[in-house]
Amino acid sequence: MVLSIDQHRQTFPSLQNKVYFNYGGQGPMDMSALGAIQEAHQVIQTKGPFGSEVNQWLQTEGQETRQVLAQEMGVGPETVALTENVTAGCNIALWGMTWRQGDHILLSDCEHPGIIATVQELQYRYGIEFSFFPHLSQVNTADPVATIEAHLRPTTRLVVVSHVLWNTGQIMPLQEICQFCHRQSPPVRVLSDAAQSVGMLPLQLADTEIDFYAFTGHKWLCGPAGLGGFYVSPEAMAELAPTYIGWRGIKISPLGQPNGWQPDARRYEIATSDVPLCSGLRTAIANHNNWGTAEERYFRICQLSSSLWGKLNAIPGVKCLLKSPPESGLVSFQLFNAGEPSPKLHKTLVTYLETQQFYLRTLLSPSCVRACTHYFTTEADIDQLIATIETFLQTHTQ
Amino acid sequence: MVLSIDQHRQTFPSLQNKVYFNYGGQGPMDMSALGAIQEAHQVIQTKGPFGSEVNQWLQTEGQETRQVLAQEMGVGPETVALTENVTAGCNIALWGMTWRQGDHILLSDCEHPGIIATVQELQYRYGIEFSFFPHLSQVNTADPVATIEAHLRPTTRLVVVSHVLWNTGQIMPLQEICQFCHRQSPPVRVLSDAAQSVGMLPLQLADTEIDFYAFTGHKWLCGPAGLGGFYVSPEAMAELAPTYIGWRGIKISPLGQPNGWQPDARRYEIATSDVPLCSGLRTAIANHNNWGTAEERYFRICQLSSSLWGKLNAIPGVKCLLKSPPESGLVSFQLFNAGEPSPKLHKTLVTYLETQQFYLRTLLSPSCVRACTHYFTTEADIDQLIATIETFLQTHTQ
Repeated sequence: MVLSIDQHRQTFPSLQNKVYFNYGGQGPMDMSALGAIQEAHQVIQTKGPFGSEVNQWLQTEGQETRQVLAQEMGVGPETVALTENVTAGCNIALWGMTWRQGDHILLSDCEHPGIIATVQELQYRYGIEFSFFPHLSQVNTADPVATIEAHLRPTTRLVVVSHVLWNTGQIMPLQEICQFCHRQSPPVRVLSDAAQSVGMLPLQLADTEIDFYAFTGHKWLCGPAGLGGFYVSPEAMAELAPTYIGWRGIKISPLGQPNGWQPDARRYEIATSDVPLCSGLRTAIANHNNWGTAEERYFRICQLSSSLWGKLNAIPGVKCLLKSPPESGLVSFQLFNAGEPSPKLHKTLVTYLETQQFYLRTLLSPSCVRACTHYFTTEADIDQLIATIETFLQTHTQ
Repeated sequence: MVLSIDQHRQTFPSLQNKVYFNYGGQGPMDMSALGAIQEAHQVIQTKGPFGSEVNQWLQTEGQETRQVLAQEMGVGPETVALTENVTAGCNIALWGMTWRQGDHILLSDCEHPGIIATVQELQYRYGIEFSFFPHLSQVNTADPVATIEAHLRPTTRLVVVSHVLWNTGQIMPLQEICQFCHRQSPPVRVLSDAAQSVGMLPLQLADTEIDFYAFTGHKWLCGPAGLGGFYVSPEAMAELAPTYIGWRGIKISPLGQPNGWQPDARRYEIATSDVPLCSGLRTAIANHNNWGTAEERYFRICQLSSSLWGKLNAIPGVKCLLKSPPESGLVSFQLFNAGEPSPKLHKTLVTYLETQQFYLRTLLSPSCVRACTHYFTTEADIDQLIATIETFLQTHTQ
């Protein structure tokens, strides 16, 4: 049975007392996903918590979850490791490559500070170099492949670029970037932060040639926080060593000694984790697919974000970062003071909106406010938000 | 109100349908801890899931949990990082030290294979050396400090030793080991796998001088799987770099760029995790403390393990690894075939026991069966286990 959007929204407790636009921060969980977590805890306590039967059950949970995630992305389950979050996946890639002094990492200037800090630590420890290719300064005109080409060095071994940029919401042409990077000699690997793409975009990852793709279940997939994944292409896996290592990633000899990696991407998994989250995430994904295909959901997301983008731009004193309707569910916009984007106004607006039960967030680079539309956002949500921003502007600016 | 052991046991769903001896694998959760997780999910969905108010609440959850854990161990909360599990904490220490070719790591021969695999990877990447000091071969006569002294090299920079050995259940003299290691020039650091000590032993960690102490909430503390911690002494923290890095560990400039570590052990935390587990763990700890002090619980654990040890040794054909009553809740024993410990018999016994609703596990090094007593184990549990092992032996051996 397919639910109407209104019926579908009724299943999300967090949508009942607020108007929610922070899907890129964290997606809300529906009651059946919350219930699945609780049920899994009960299964564990009933069968175990530790014993042969429950350990088999826990393993199966992991397998099924890797399979479901792999299917969402159009790849094989042997290429997917479960992780705690996006950042963990990025760290697996960044620490697992073999670095030599002078190696170069090229990052877009729209990457998350956690990734930049890791690259800085690699620089400190291994004497690698890194630089940024500019995208933000030419956000409405950029040709990312040409820009990457212009900034690539003979020593570049890795390009780091988000699939959907968390600040502007733009989609980066992953396939073109990867094809270009792989044509270099030696080939340059590509790591993509997929925080904003998994659950938002229809994906056929294998076609993109991406090497490393780090994602999470708790944003656009509306799963629980604390469970994500890491895709690694079979070719890249052959060269990528596990760094943080534990019993889930290794094989054990009959005498209890480590004697090799798991044959698949499980080699990057570490040790004990909160397996009930697996049921929660799979349930959330099943509910999305029950409502519509990935293509249908993405189409609706863009319809709504375009509508929001248009209505925001129509408010005097508000300017969206993008000059054309967004291709994603992320809509970032700025308020101005003396002609300059105002971090203070952005913060005041978001704080005010939360008192009115509207949930958005500020970003620092560039300073802006970000609103996200999911496929179950409504035009009424958007219209109420627009009206509330207008009220704010009447009282907080001249 | 203090509960009797019988009343206390009623609060653990997993104790209702089985006789449980796998506390060293995973502790059972009581209903209030399970309920606290569910309640925290509801708070998150009601307040958020993403916004200023809920983010403040999530931060407070982390703070309170670090405080409770620090108090359990007799250290300051600024020295404790939340992790996913024991192994993650060991990896933070092992990857965060500055390794030079030829540096040496000395491990006990009773460490977990996950740790050994990580040390092997350090060897491969950095050209370090490692070796094991023997303990298992002289399990009933060993003087660990003298053995470590005999195996220390001028190049040794780290000793890795569990606080309570997961196979024999022996307690290692952490304070004497650390004092000895710190007297070396340059001082040798000590990493302790605390999987089997936190929640079992009364701890005053600061007194031990330990540098790195990696623990979990899901074994003897009976918290949820997926939440543990890492203690690092203030002196060791000054030298230990974060490796896997994310937004929880760094500070951010007004322009959104990383500009330093968190001032305390949070620098080793990575990114988004399953915060409801914090409430579950704190509730589990509060319930233990409500029943009795750490000293009272430890006393009861040892009373019960001594009883189990004595009754196991009294069964013809069963021999405990230790010649004297254990100082911990871990009781490992062996069955024999043609005079040799039999991995096959151990496996058959554990499988048989699970069909009879008795939960124990095998270990591979040395091959044995391990039974654990918690403070809420009963003499009746033990007597039923002994009778069932006797039945098994009558049918499976000559």
